Amino acid sequence: MCSSRMPMKWISVLLLLQLSCQFSPGGCGKVLVWPTEYSHWINMKTILDELVQRGHEVTVLTHTASILIDPNKPSAIKFEIYPTSFKKDDFQKLVMQLISKWTYIPKDTFWTYLSLMEEILLEFGDSVLKLCKDAVLNKELMTKLQQGKFDVVLADAVGPCGELLAELLNIPLVYSLRFFPGFAVEKQSGGLPFPPSYVPIILSELSDQMTFIERVKNMLYVLYFDFWFQMFREDWDQFYSEVLGRPTTLSELMRKAEIWLIRTYWDFEFPRPLLPHFEFVGGLHCKPAKPLPKVIWRYEGKKPDTLGPNTRLYKWIPQNDLLGHPKTKAFITHGGTNGIYEAIYHGIPMVGLPLFADQPDNIAHMKAKGAAVRLDFNTMSSADLLNALKTVINDPSYKENAMKLSRIHHDQPIKPLDRAVFWIEFVMRHKGAKHLRPASYDLTWFQYHSLDVIGFLLACVATAILVVTKCVLFCCRKFAKTGKKGKRE
Amino acid sequence: MCSSRMPMKWISVLLLLQLSCQFSPGGCGKVLVWPTEYSHWINMKTILDELVQRGHEVTVLTHTASILIDPNKPSAIKFEIYPTSFKKDDFQKLVMQLISKWTYIPKDTFWTYLSLMEEILLEFGDSVLKLCKDAVLNKELMTKLQQGKFDVVLADAVGPCGELLAELLNIPLVYSLRFFPGFAVEKQSGGLPFPPSYVPIILSELSDQMTFIERVKNMLYVLYFDFWFQMFREDWDQFYSEVLGRPTTLSELMRKAEIWLIRTYWDFEFPRPLLPHFEFVGGLHCKPAKPLPKVIWRYEGKKPDTLGPNTRLYKWIPQNDLLGHPKTKAFITHGGTNGIYEAIYHGIPMVGLPLFADQPDNIAHMKAKGAAVRLDFNTMSSADLLNALKTVINDPSYKENAMKLSRIHHDQPIKPLDRAVFWIEFVMRHKGAKHLRPASYDLTWFQYHSLDVIGFLLACVATAILVVTKCVLFCCRKFAKTGKKGKRE
Repeated sequence: MCSSRMPMKWISVLLLLQLSCQFSPGGCGKVLVWPTEYSHWINMKTILDELVQRGHEVTVLTHTASILIDPNKPSAIKFEIYPTSFKKDDFQKLVMQLISKWTYIPKDTFWTYLSLMEEILLEFGDSVLKLCKDAVLNKELMTKLQQGKFDVVLADAVGPCGELLAELLNIPLVYSLRFFPGFAVEKQSGGLPFPPSYVPIILSELSDQMTFIERVKNMLYVLYFDFWFQMFREDWDQFYSEVLGRPTTLSELMRKAEIWLIRTYWDFEFPRPLLPHFEFVGGLHCKPAKPLPKVIWRYEGKKPDTLGPNTRLYKWIPQNDLLGHPKTKAFITHGGTNGIYEAIYHGIPMVGLPLFADQPDNIAHMKAKGAAVRLDFNTMSSADLLNALKTVINDPSYKENAMKLSRIHHDQPIKPLDRAVFWIEFVMRHKGAKHLRPASYDLTWFQYHSLDVIGFLLACVATAILVVTKCVLFCCRKFAKTGKKGKRE
Repeated sequence: MCSSRMPMKWISVLLLLQLSCQFSPGGCGKVLVWPTEYSHWINMKTILDELVQRGHEVTVLTHTASILIDPNKPSAIKFEIYPTSFKKDDFQKLVMQLISKWTYIPKDTFWTYLSLMEEILLEFGDSVLKLCKDAVLNKELMTKLQQGKFDVVLADAVGPCGELLAELLNIPLVYSLRFFPGFAVEKQSGGLPFPPSYVPIILSELSDQMTFIERVKNMLYVLYFDFWFQMFREDWDQFYSEVLGRPTTLSELMRKAEIWLIRTYWDFEFPRPLLPHFEFVGGLHCKPAKPLPKVIWRYEGKKPDTLGPNTRLYKWIPQNDLLGHPKTKAFITHGGTNGIYEAIYHGIPMVGLPLFADQPDNIAHMKAKGAAVRLDFNTMSSADLLNALKTVINDPSYKENAMKLSRIHHDQPIKPLDRAVFWIEFVMRHKGAKHLRPASYDLTWFQYHSLDVIGFLLACVATAILVVTKCVLFCCRKFAKTGKKGKRE
């Protein structure tokens, strides 16, 4: 009965073939997609390609200023393009400005850092809200979508609107999400508990092993992001209420999501509480490497004179194939989640030069797990880079830890992509996944934290103490009086 | 690409064949089992049979007074039997007494119910502790187990000792668990959060939709079981500390568990927070029914004169085959988890006559999900039973809801038994699953609840208010003095 390891690959292929369009006996489903740009899109496209491969019809809702989403590229994915007042160049410039601002925020003081980041995140929110309005207030588009009879909306939760589309089209919703600043929507909309004592809040760059001062810092981050999210959602709450003609909130509509596909896994995350409708599908885009002829280098500038003949320059390279090359010793990375997962997949130690968003956190995670050295992009010297590279290459613990993460990643009962697609198909098959909806969604925040119950019980105890004290005092006085009377007599 | 539904069955078969002993390239693993009696054993045996089927060597540690575990029955499972001072009959009598006491506890008053249950549970704990001592203090047995070079301990967490064996043998530990009273060990040893506002504590018989008074009741149960567990674990803490020669606690050793296999799933449970090392594998013992000739009845008493010719009497029947018979309309059940799962598997509505332990809760769950009617075994009349049966048979909502649970149960990416065995094999392959261990295990209870951090921040705020007040008062006085001086001049 005993056979060798790793038969997962071909089982997955079988699963893939057999799961084709099983969501209904009659045929395949129609998926409407609300995407986000850049790496978010690259990751989501892997899911969409898989859905198309299984025979589903996938329609991506996008706009005339979209950056990476190129509807002119030949693809089996359909694109529904709506006009926006953003000009393509202006939109790209806006996004680039936000990224650049975030990269160069001085990290000298905690509060300066937070207030500058707040500004950037609110600006990002404004641009997404504008795009959302351009779509939802476009009557012709909405009529077309209504007639499209979609089975599910698949949306990236970092750029809201998908939940409003799902509500208007009256169909179930599935989220894909790397993270929302400070885990605000995962907590306030998804209902996830984040005990600040051992769950470092995203953008805090902390690990799960925190000193007292770090736990204080983490708590301040939690309070800060709770406060920030109140500001962030104000305009959204107002717009959603206007569109639906009843008072509602962003959080209320986000709770519509049947499944949250989180783009990390326990090879990368520190263990923390989850809920049954959260699936951790990190690295779903990873795949075995195709062979490469030689070691190559992606570089767009002027070719340096000192470049050796064994270094090739390319404008773009297939990063995954390079990371999977047997001679690859280390990965110098800005720390994007997709790239980190390719390194985990192939077991490559990292030198991290994080720039913005979750990148510093990602590198902090890899550093805590012993698979990366971190440098500061704004202050490092070439000697620092050389030393860091030497460290991750020559100190065997980095390779060992990277391989350990790789083994954890590969050793799952089902591949993350298959799990992601399974749950999207599940939602189509059953028109939702209501059996996974936590009852906490129906509670107010003070009910959720049992503050009313605690208050009631404390009041009961206080009343009991009061009554007993009064009785004792009454008896004492009576006794004292009787005593005096007795003495007198 | 489109095919019909339900290709899961043969995928599972393939998974089963391919996963054979993949935990090490060299061969198969050695599993040491610390079981619990009755339905616990029936459920665990399914996992053990599967492990044996895949080529692993399974040794069950049992004692001379064991009830259902019959080492004389032919089986590929090995049994290591140690002597205990319990006599077989006495042990069975003791267990039966406890069950009978629990069944007939009067439920008139909350506190009487709890104090009687407490007594029973402490008695149960004492008997398990005695068996644990008989095993661990048996030097010959322990030497034999040391020499056995096991790869993992698989233990039912409801009867402690497995964690001590794993510690003494220095090997990883996997738990199988239906529940511990009040979820005490799931919370205090497993680290699971149980927000009392929407997670009904086991043995409370509440659902996840609670009124204010029910939430108060649930909170009282939480406080009660926290207090009860302190009493329960006292003797265990002492024994474990003596054996290991250092101060330790039951909870500390239970945190050794790499994976907790919980014997329920979201077809049965109300959604609640979990941790990545908790796998919900409810119904792992369920399987398709084999054909039956006619409708039959299990009955051990005197054959009633009025019995119709279409009713057969058997001393024991294959319950699963009966529930899977196409003509089965309803299931009258005491509400054990195994039986409930067989009904869910086959989509059969239930009439519940719960007796003890989790049975009232199980029926409460099925009732809340619309798949059962509940009767009180101690007070019901034959007319009540007839009416309940008529209701679940004639009101189509019961069958619909039972079928809905059945569909949820069957529509999982991997069958629960395969998931259970996967994680046991994972722990053997990787000598643990440390990447899933929550950092909360290293915190004290006040650190876990951030009480030190909250205290510190409140102290900071109080100090700041004090300093500002002092400054303002100082300035006011200064200003008042200057004013007076000015007036005088």
